Amino acid sequence: MGVTIAVDILGGDHAPLVPLEGVARTHDSFADVDFLLCGPQDLIEEFLDKKPHLKDRCKIVHAPEHVTNDTPARDAVRGLKQSSMRLAIEAVRDGQADGVVSGGNTGAYMALSKIILKTLEGIDRPAITGTVPSQKGPIVMLDLGANVEATAEQLCQFAQMGEAFSRHVLGVQTPSVGLLNIGSEELKGHADLKVAYDIIKATGAVANFHGYVEGDDIMNGTTHVVVTDGFTGNVSLKTMEGAVHFLVDVFKQELSRKLRFKVAALFAKGALTAFKQQLDPRHHNGAPFLGLKGVAVKSHGGMDEVGFANALGVAINMVSKDLNSHILEEVRRIQGFAQ
Amino acid sequence: MGVTIAVDILGGDHAPLVPLEGVARTHDSFADVDFLLCGPQDLIEEFLDKKPHLKDRCKIVHAPEHVTNDTPARDAVRGLKQSSMRLAIEAVRDGQADGVVSGGNTGAYMALSKIILKTLEGIDRPAITGTVPSQKGPIVMLDLGANVEATAEQLCQFAQMGEAFSRHVLGVQTPSVGLLNIGSEELKGHADLKVAYDIIKATGAVANFHGYVEGDDIMNGTTHVVVTDGFTGNVSLKTMEGAVHFLVDVFKQELSRKLRFKVAALFAKGALTAFKQQLDPRHHNGAPFLGLKGVAVKSHGGMDEVGFANALGVAINMVSKDLNSHILEEVRRIQGFAQ
Repeated sequence: MGVTIAVDILGGDHAPLVPLEGVARTHDSFADVDFLLCGPQDLIEEFLDKKPHLKDRCKIVHAPEHVTNDTPARDAVRGLKQSSMRLAIEAVRDGQADGVVSGGNTGAYMALSKIILKTLEGIDRPAITGTVPSQKGPIVMLDLGANVEATAEQLCQFAQMGEAFSRHVLGVQTPSVGLLNIGSEELKGHADLKVAYDIIKATGAVANFHGYVEGDDIMNGTTHVVVTDGFTGNVSLKTMEGAVHFLVDVFKQELSRKLRFKVAALFAKGALTAFKQQLDPRHHNGAPFLGLKGVAVKSHGGMDEVGFANALGVAINMVSKDLNSHILEEVRRIQGFAQ
Repeated sequence: MGVTIAVDILGGDHAPLVPLEGVARTHDSFADVDFLLCGPQDLIEEFLDKKPHLKDRCKIVHAPEHVTNDTPARDAVRGLKQSSMRLAIEAVRDGQADGVVSGGNTGAYMALSKIILKTLEGIDRPAITGTVPSQKGPIVMLDLGANVEATAEQLCQFAQMGEAFSRHVLGVQTPSVGLLNIGSEELKGHADLKVAYDIIKATGAVANFHGYVEGDDIMNGTTHVVVTDGFTGNVSLKTMEGAVHFLVDVFKQELSRKLRFKVAALFAKGALTAFKQQLDPRHHNGAPFLGLKGVAVKSHGGMDEVGFANALGVAINMVSKDLNSHILEEVRRIQGFAQ
């Protein structure tokens, strides 16, 4: 049976071209995926007329309104009933699509998704989930910003959702799960973290609980899943982005200081290219809002079509692996304990 | 007038050699600095006998007891009255030294420093303060782990202390100060952060308040000072450490894949060395506990003597620039407002 993905054509800094080109790439590599293109009909038709081979698996949902990056979430929720973002999410709720992808305003997208799709039974709040490159391959990290604070129970739910994502979408058989904390015994973290630790231990919420990890464990790949609240997760993720930029820039500067270095760089071009590819954020693009009844994936607003296609791939994978059923199973398994 | 620094000879993973060798290096580069070496007398004498030229400016404070990395902070505080760490801090309280440096157990060092030295008038709590490399040179970041949570007033105090450190120790004339937060308008951080923002704005606590910054702004060097609570600061700092390790390792792996790359690396050796030097944690070592009556600097436990000497240099600088007077001035300036 095929998968249908609803796409917010107006979401992202380079919309509508990036979402549309992203769909075109994905159309060619996934033969059994259909698309519901949500946005102004004329824009979409114009694009499809240029690429008529897409028409067999693309349907249009006309959406004349636009949630911009500056639209407050409450306005996107209360007004803008015909926005491309809202109609794409509603298509999932109404069963016309199995998942939705948008590169638009994260706050509005999260608010609309929560209200329209609702959370899975047993999940208090959805978490923005990302994959991060590490020494041992991509690892899963959540929450990346949906919840400024998280209770111990919510952290436990994040642990279960992250484990399910790692196992069923990334294919790690028994993913290890770590709770992000700070180091020394004496200076150790929030009370909620300790309670979360105890709950996860006591209930066996995840099969392979590693315990606490620290900031440097993320990119060291100490665990397959790193669990934290949305504030810490967001700061940490952005810190990594800043570190990567800084290091690449410093390195480029050093290499450009002498002709000899420039020549050496030419000889090492293959190595430099492979290095850059490992860090290419496009290959890690696509952050699901885990915990919703339905699949919703956020594409980074600044991505190009390669990155957008990657986000579409994440959504397709989540649907075809039936991730939400696995999450529900996990949550139900410990519900007796958690009460 | 000379400066005297008390040194905990038993602190750190490679004690007593690293602290002693660190003192030897600093002795040679600072002609008017005296040292109070706190630790077992026989160990210190043995070292000084090998380097007799140090004896003119080194005094010994015999300390038979040892705060190890596993000593709980409360044991270090309640017992171990003759520990090298405690006696070194007490030397500052008693006016025998102007500052103290230890590479030992951070939790115990912080607890002892707070109890023995007490905080400056108008400062609730000390903050662990570090310098971090950035695109625009080293920036100041605090708190890095002393306070898991921080009130709005405390964040405001951190802002003032960080500004004073940047101006008087690093020599930045009008340092810009940022409050670490997460991005979008809708998903924005803790209530305390917003209050801190308002207090800093309203009181003019710092001369050049930039407002909020995000994780990627740290290494981008957006502001000279980044203010945050100890949990977020610690996670963020460790995340950077992990990112640097990861990137350097991936890069080395790529370069070793082909002979051609290895040869290119030889030709670019100068660039690679300069790159590594910019990231060398030894040159950023030395994290002061700002806000105490007296100067206390933490050296990273794993450092070698070059790093330890750097931490000694930070303490010497703080004393000779009379940083604490400047902090007091700043705090008093806004005291009328803050009430």
